[in-house]
Amino acid sequence: MLELFPDTAEIVGGVLHVGGCSTAALADEHGTPLVVYCEETVRAAARSWQRGAPDATIVYGSKALPNAGLVRALVEEGVGADVSTLGELRIAQAAGVPASKLVVHGNNKSDEELAAAAEVDAWLVVMDEPGEVERCAAAGVKRVLLRITPGIEADTHEKIRTGHAGSKFGVAPEEAPEVIDGARAAGLEMLGLHVHLGSQLVDTGAARSAVERLTGLCADARARLDWTPAIVNLGGGLGIRHVLDEPAPPSPEEYARAVSERLQAAWAAVDLPRPHLVFEPGRSLVGRAGLTLYRVGVVKRTGETTWVAVDGGMSDNPRPALYGARYSALLATRADEPPGGVFAVCGKHCESGDVLIERAELPAPRRGDLLAIPATGAYTLAMASGYNAVERPAALLVVGGRARAILRRGQTEEPSPA
Amino acid sequence: MLELFPDTAEIVGGVLHVGGCSTAALADEHGTPLVVYCEETVRAAARSWQRGAPDATIVYGSKALPNAGLVRALVEEGVGADVSTLGELRIAQAAGVPASKLVVHGNNKSDEELAAAAEVDAWLVVMDEPGEVERCAAAGVKRVLLRITPGIEADTHEKIRTGHAGSKFGVAPEEAPEVIDGARAAGLEMLGLHVHLGSQLVDTGAARSAVERLTGLCADARARLDWTPAIVNLGGGLGIRHVLDEPAPPSPEEYARAVSERLQAAWAAVDLPRPHLVFEPGRSLVGRAGLTLYRVGVVKRTGETTWVAVDGGMSDNPRPALYGARYSALLATRADEPPGGVFAVCGKHCESGDVLIERAELPAPRRGDLLAIPATGAYTLAMASGYNAVERPAALLVVGGRARAILRRGQTEEPSPA
Repeated sequence: MLELFPDTAEIVGGVLHVGGCSTAALADEHGTPLVVYCEETVRAAARSWQRGAPDATIVYGSKALPNAGLVRALVEEGVGADVSTLGELRIAQAAGVPASKLVVHGNNKSDEELAAAAEVDAWLVVMDEPGEVERCAAAGVKRVLLRITPGIEADTHEKIRTGHAGSKFGVAPEEAPEVIDGARAAGLEMLGLHVHLGSQLVDTGAARSAVERLTGLCADARARLDWTPAIVNLGGGLGIRHVLDEPAPPSPEEYARAVSERLQAAWAAVDLPRPHLVFEPGRSLVGRAGLTLYRVGVVKRTGETTWVAVDGGMSDNPRPALYGARYSALLATRADEPPGGVFAVCGKHCESGDVLIERAELPAPRRGDLLAIPATGAYTLAMASGYNAVERPAALLVVGGRARAILRRGQTEEPSPA
Repeated sequence: MLELFPDTAEIVGGVLHVGGCSTAALADEHGTPLVVYCEETVRAAARSWQRGAPDATIVYGSKALPNAGLVRALVEEGVGADVSTLGELRIAQAAGVPASKLVVHGNNKSDEELAAAAEVDAWLVVMDEPGEVERCAAAGVKRVLLRITPGIEADTHEKIRTGHAGSKFGVAPEEAPEVIDGARAAGLEMLGLHVHLGSQLVDTGAARSAVERLTGLCADARARLDWTPAIVNLGGGLGIRHVLDEPAPPSPEEYARAVSERLQAAWAAVDLPRPHLVFEPGRSLVGRAGLTLYRVGVVKRTGETTWVAVDGGMSDNPRPALYGARYSALLATRADEPPGGVFAVCGKHCESGDVLIERAELPAPRRGDLLAIPATGAYTLAMASGYNAVERPAALLVVGGRARAILRRGQTEEPSPA
């Protein structure tokens, strides 16, 4: 179970510790629900990505949690940011992401967002549709990529699968040459292509298929347009493990290396000049670094099920309700006790779908116990609601026995830097 | 299409008006996305419920949107509130809901919430599990109901179906006698039973089945415990129509009358004394009263689909992503033009599942058009997130040509009363 938690997770006197801090003490001091991020795990993930693709630019897919406190740690590791709204752009700036590592995305960028991208001189704007050529030029954007939807069905949940035909994102490969030509005619630096395959991918299959398609497209573009991409942005999408009985995805290092080598070999085979690679990991940078602490309230049996109700739920982690996502749990305050049964973990919201875990093996939980759900660092707080008029959880960054608040309870933006 | 909109919806000079206000003018002044509530429609729905069950107490299921501005209008119509968290309780109090019409719910009430219910002397606390008997007594709660899960499979989406066995809510009928007895022994006024069947119900079938089960249970309780319920709380659950090709549910008046009459007949048949009824409508009070205005941005064709991207999405209306909910749309600024095709309406979030409507017949939308989605008054803003660091929409209450802000952009709580 501990392997689902951050690198620094350990059990001391029966209590889960992370980053040298007792989760029991953190919960007592900061209240629950509480999301705790391990800074060492975030930094280690960033380094793993960079070892796997040392010549590439790694930018954080900040939608996983747009938070200045987290992003600051990533910036110190040389990671940039991919942003898709004005809000994410402002958070990246507050965190000190250099403009030279800022990638601006979005299927429906507003004029205001394009103007802001130009104003901060963001490294790259990723155009999503033909009409953006004119709007980027008018806004004063300099360097652009074009997002391609390669028509690949990645093996992941339908809602987070983005590379298939009929997605709202990008342009079809056959439309690309006209847009590339148009961008060059409009005076934009048309630097390359972007492809994103989905989220929570657990192998390199989709990325390898994308490389095949991209190679064909780029060889064709060279022949027809005398244009080759200086930059290839392969998006994010690498998954993490949330439960022990799902397959472990490759490490960032393994994934980045395999995909980079595949692309370089494919490019070499058709004699294309080697491009600069960009990866946009989100979940694989911060997902395992974060865990959520809840206080156990009601424990009751109905029918065949023993319910363990916690003081949060679908408001702070909508992934089970949205995607059928599965999670594990550990009783953080009795972490060395053997399992006493199988329990369903639900939240406190007035909705039957407010179930976080259908089957969790735990020592029989009691009111007041602290429950820790690992691998909740990505797409939880980022998508948190105030359903039933609850406050969104606070978040802490822990390292070396110290905890620092990076999100105040009830807020969605980061507090001012301390 | 206008029948899906609030009662006051009309098209004037090609522009959708609500509550005597031009939606174009509201969007220009307040920005988009913007949720607009028609006060007349809210009040008419409250009156319809009361005509159908004039002797019953109608309390607003405030989770549909816990907002003091909305609740104030309902209070003026004699409606109370059902609350399930401290946050919802505070909003109901701010809106002036009298304690005598306050019903406190929750499958995992905290000690703080029970103490607050006792402190304000809320009319009823609905116990959800056996352990609450002792906790209610300790907190000083006076009057209680017991929530029963009758084991009925309502014909609605799995996640919002709450009456089936295995739900996290309530106790099984066979457990009820022991809890009822325990509550009386603990000195609580054990006033009756609660049953909730689900949400977005479109006929009285589930409610009628619940009445059958309740009747048997109550006849049994009289025989075994010499106890009969003074109060029967039938919950909420009545749906609204979101698209023209789904069946129209009964009006609140029809639903309340049919269910009341059925219960009275069943009760009379076994010679039980007629109880006081409580209904807890949420969606049927505010759902059709609310519509969401979006500004159209990108319009693009990929494959067989023409996408119309708006400046909101799953952050302000997560129901399509959560429940597969279907919606309709009207081009509010060209509302008298004939349809020019079928379009998919998506949001601006970096996620493929961020699709609000898969098929909407519209005049061909253009950048800058205003798009109105009707029947978005319930469970939209209430569940809104800040995904991709966007601000949550503002909300207005319109009546007689005047608009009043009831929720500021970026906030989840109501602003102070003006």
